[in-house]
Amino acid sequence: MKTPMPPRSRNRSSAFADRARRIRLLLMDVDGVLTDGRIYLQSLPDGTAEEMKVFHAHDGAGLKLARAAGLRTGVITGRDSAATSRRAREVGMDFVSQKRAEKLPAYEQILREARVRDAEVAYIGDDLPDLPVLERVGLAIAVDNAVPEVKRAAHFVTRRRGGEGAVREAIEAILRARGSWHEVIAKARA
Amino acid sequence: MKTPMPPRSRNRSSAFADRARRIRLLLMDVDGVLTDGRIYLQSLPDGTAEEMKVFHAHDGAGLKLARAAGLRTGVITGRDSAATSRRAREVGMDFVSQKRAEKLPAYEQILREARVRDAEVAYIGDDLPDLPVLERVGLAIAVDNAVPEVKRAAHFVTRRRGGEGAVREAIEAILRARGSWHEVIAKARA
Amino acid sequence: MKTPMPPRSRNRSSAFADRARRIRLLLMDVDGVLTDGRIYLQSLPDGTAEEMKVFHAHDGAGLKLARAAGLRTGVITGRDSAATSRRAREVGMDFVSQKRAEKLPAYEQILREARVRDAEVAYIGDDLPDLPVLERVGLAIAVDNAVPEVKRAAHFVTRRRGGEGAVREAIEAILRARGSWHEVIAKARA
Amino acid sequence: MKTPMPPRSRNRSSAFADRARRIRLLLMDVDGVLTDGRIYLQSLPDGTAEEMKVFHAHDGAGLKLARAAGLRTGVITGRDSAATSRRAREVGMDFVSQKRAEKLPAYEQILREARVRDAEVAYIGDDLPDLPVLERVGLAIAVDNAVPEVKRAAHFVTRRRGGEGAVREAIEAILRARGSWHEVIAKARA
Repeated sequence: MKTPMPPRSRNRSSAFADRARRIRLLLMDVDGVLTDGRIYLQSLPDGTAEEMKVFHAHDGAGLKLARAAGLRTGVITGRDSAATSRRAREVGMDFVSQKRAEKLPAYEQILREARVRDAEVAYIGDDLPDLPVLERVGLAIAVDNAVPEVKRAAHFVTRRRGGEGAVREAIEAILRARGSWHEVIAKARA
Repeated sequence: MKTPMPPRSRNRSSAFADRARRIRLLLMDVDGVLTDGRIYLQSLPDGTAEEMKVFHAHDGAGLKLARAAGLRTGVITGRDSAATSRRAREVGMDFVSQKRAEKLPAYEQILREARVRDAEVAYIGDDLPDLPVLERVGLAIAVDNAVPEVKRAAHFVTRRRGGEGAVREAIEAILRARGSWHEVIAKARA
Repeated sequence: MKTPMPPRSRNRSSAFADRARRIRLLLMDVDGVLTDGRIYLQSLPDGTAEEMKVFHAHDGAGLKLARAAGLRTGVITGRDSAATSRRAREVGMDFVSQKRAEKLPAYEQILREARVRDAEVAYIGDDLPDLPVLERVGLAIAVDNAVPEVKRAAHFVTRRRGGEGAVREAIEAILRARGSWHEVIAKARA
Repeated sequence: MKTPMPPRSRNRSSAFADRARRIRLLLMDVDGVLTDGRIYLQSLPDGTAEEMKVFHAHDGAGLKLARAAGLRTGVITGRDSAATSRRAREVGMDFVSQKRAEKLPAYEQILREARVRDAEVAYIGDDLPDLPVLERVGLAIAVDNAVPEVKRAAHFVTRRRGGEGAVREAIEAILRARGSWHEVIAKARA
């Protein structure tokens, strides 16, 4: 299914537009995709530690644009944190699957709930645990900071790094391929 | 009103000085302008999460210089956090408008309270929700990390990024255009 | 024991592979190695302050791959924080030695518990307190952000900085030298 | 007193060594010098916000080396936080003067307590409020991220930025000028 071309030259191919036009559901990893991969742990006086997560405002605005364009969105992550739950709620995500060391069962469950097929799903990842899902979806996206194995498996590699607007960039690329970007940002300003 | 010239070449034009000399009120967005756009969410033991915001000391010193030069200052933001409230108080801001998904009504309310006209207001923004205000104010400023649509709407684009001194740079540019920079920093040292 | 060659040219030598094949235990410093060296202190309302530590998801995934390949892992650090304890637990570390201003006694205690010899240990460090251990171990590794004295003492210098995947890079280099990298990542995907 | 030479060419002059040899007390600003100037404010559930500060492990190790070499150390800052108090204690500082909008009175008080003269003091700063002290001390140091006015007033400008080892670099430069660097790091390893 994957061509031997390097991802960056594939980015502008008409194949990308074909894949993007079919997407109805945009899923993604959290650490390294919606964040820059840093794991912040705050020590507390009682000897425990709680996690902080660092998202980006541009991704948040992008995810709201995706919704406005009729895409559903969600995350599948191996970790579990209240920060991710709050962020998913803030940006209006439809599916939040945390604490899933193996991502494929979570992915399949979301597909059943969303009633969509592989070809209608885009997934954004950065590391080895994302590979099984990336090889299933219709549009496989890697962030610039992904490990080489993930970049090789992707149809599209973002120029931006995770946590610095990579998700916004992916959404803009999908909406432009569908021809709905200008309509959506005009609506966002109204 | 806007010329077709690229923002960076407009930066040094006498038009900028004309606009800057009229300013009595400096308003700005928070995320991506007073911060670098990162959204920090700290998980708490009770399962909720609280936001941290990351400002810059140079911007704080710059906002105090703006006050010393007789400018009033304020923020209009779609989010709501105690961190922004504290920072606005620390740097002596006059107007703090949070949790405003749409910025234009908040902007108009501040103008009435401040008894100033559009031409007397400068606004610093970085993303699409800032556009309606940027197109109204006398001096529209974009930070270096703004999205392209915002840079195109700006009279002035800072060299620094949001959260790394962009607001200080904008204030220094305005005060230099008014010829009051040297007087203000001399006063600041006294 | 150390050759006069600069570390970077030594990186690809067969000597590295010889050393890497003997390793059974991978130890490391925390600040500057598993983190970028920043010390985050959060002020609390009661006038005390608690430390936050910032790790990286890729290092965490790498440490799990090291375990899967049969390596034991651990940290020796001069500081003491609940964040390090939690992270060590999350990534399945075998040895956690905190609050050790002098690292050599802690190192020797771990060797006794692990029943391994110097030649079977790799250690990753960045600053002067790491030197006594680096000069003992079979494979001495410095991160890119290490001080010059530490880089000179190292058999291998990572291209990545501490807290940005340097530990993952070191683990990948060791596993590749042993010929087990492809087998381990195949297992990780299963 | 200050020559018209640019700071960077002055860095290597014998004048620096003459000044460095007289230093008995090393004072510094906090924000932008021991940190990168970012002001982190964590919102709390009760609607207040508490400050986090981000220091660097290499600066901490450097400040301990300064002590080992017989230098006393301290901070003068306009802000007030438990994080700074804890960090000053951790690295063994002798003088901690917080919440001082004007730095000169705090500086003069420390000089009386320490029983040293201006020529025996080095001060590291980054912004306008540091100027009055920088113009008094025997050795005026600016960090790479200082504003132009501060760099012009400095005898020495660090290559590193505040919060990324600038203080360690300044300490190393002073100790090398005194010929005590190698002795001190040898002692640190013992």
